[in-house]
Amino acid sequence: MKEWLKQGERFDDLERNGYRIIQSEGRFCFGMDAVLLSGFSRVKEGECVLDLGTGTGIIPILLRAKTKGKHFTGLEIQPESADMARRSVLYNHLENEINIVVGDLKEASVLFGAASFDVVTSNPPYMIHTHGLVNPDPALAAARHELLCCFEDVVRETAKVLRQNGRFFLVHRPFRLPELIRILSLYKLEPKRMRLVYPYIEKEPNMVLLECVKGGKSRLLIEKPLIIYKSPNVYTDEIYEIYGY
Amino acid sequence: MKEWLKQGERFDDLERNGYRIIQSEGRFCFGMDAVLLSGFSRVKEGECVLDLGTGTGIIPILLRAKTKGKHFTGLEIQPESADMARRSVLYNHLENEINIVVGDLKEASVLFGAASFDVVTSNPPYMIHTHGLVNPDPALAAARHELLCCFEDVVRETAKVLRQNGRFFLVHRPFRLPELIRILSLYKLEPKRMRLVYPYIEKEPNMVLLECVKGGKSRLLIEKPLIIYKSPNVYTDEIYEIYGY
Repeated sequence: MKEWLKQGERFDDLERNGYRIIQSEGRFCFGMDAVLLSGFSRVKEGECVLDLGTGTGIIPILLRAKTKGKHFTGLEIQPESADMARRSVLYNHLENEINIVVGDLKEASVLFGAASFDVVTSNPPYMIHTHGLVNPDPALAAARHELLCCFEDVVRETAKVLRQNGRFFLVHRPFRLPELIRILSLYKLEPKRMRLVYPYIEKEPNMVLLECVKGGKSRLLIEKPLIIYKSPNVYTDEIYEIYGY
Repeated sequence: MKEWLKQGERFDDLERNGYRIIQSEGRFCFGMDAVLLSGFSRVKEGECVLDLGTGTGIIPILLRAKTKGKHFTGLEIQPESADMARRSVLYNHLENEINIVVGDLKEASVLFGAASFDVVTSNPPYMIHTHGLVNPDPALAAARHELLCCFEDVVRETAKVLRQNGRFFLVHRPFRLPELIRILSLYKLEPKRMRLVYPYIEKEPNMVLLECVKGGKSRLLIEKPLIIYKSPNVYTDEIYEIYGY
């Protein structure tokens, strides 16, 4: 395996189609957020998908495993993350289905053109620049804080690259929900389906999953709660199912 | 008791301070919505509260029982409902604390003046005019469908009659959440706290409770799920607690 990995990197099993992903402990590793987003996203047969800020490519690889989408593009600004994503794509023999592009998501519509995707996904940085501690590592900081892009950048580019009635799937923090809805509405991305993720049934939610439709009418389906743990360190059945165990 | 009741009316116990409320089976009776809204609303000592579209006065009477608010006004457009509310107020000896006003909530700010309340509550009609069957009874129809007022009327008047940093508590249907947030934002009523009400843990929510602050900053706390039934016909402990049993 050594020829696939650089120093500090490791393979992680994805429990789907035997796929593995290259990650680096010093850099940003994918979290439950990305896995839950891939479980929430619905990609139909033959559709083309763009993942904005793909990091190590976890979302395109999982969506390729879970759906019948035709092609998946991951856009990533950080060359080191994109390099790991590309090696994972090659390792899993997915080079015909997944393309990793190095570039700034603020220019996605220039890179890919208008109305060029059926589906956009994104697990964007959650924290406003001034919220909380910013990680001293620039790669980790950019993945968590809105340093290189803000939510409106993601939404504006999504609205441009999606075809009419195309779908946008995202994961974010519940405390920003009103602001997310306002910005999505500004760009005619109407929230149509929402699910809140609660660590325990008795706790406040710590993630929100949203499906928006470009040009959709206003009517939201809020789904049943997605609960992560049934007891400490024991996932609920649904979480095991999403993870593919 | 007969002198208090008109034909077809009955007293219902509220399980709070021995209060009772007059309702009529042929007219709109209060639902769980109003009770959950009164449990969700936070009224501080000495505050003045306005309930928009108060019906038979359930929300002012419950808030008077549950909080240390100084004064409660219920505004109701239908004279028959307001008459029942007034008799309930008198029966419970609350005439110094609760005032029932007959009038159109679209003119609340004319009736009461700007910045005249600390708290506004509302359990408005949920359904857009064209949604589903409209009840042939005009009183029932107006309570359920946006015939006499729409959500924007409620929000516009609330924004006017609330003092700066005053709070607006409402209950509505989850499918309208994006639209509610957009309209609230338009009038600078920022959603700060939200709770979704799920009939069962495995079901989609059928009510949303919202606390908004006039001129508040954007940051929403979504609370743990409020579950109604733990098994068929058996309420959860929290519901029994809110009802006061």
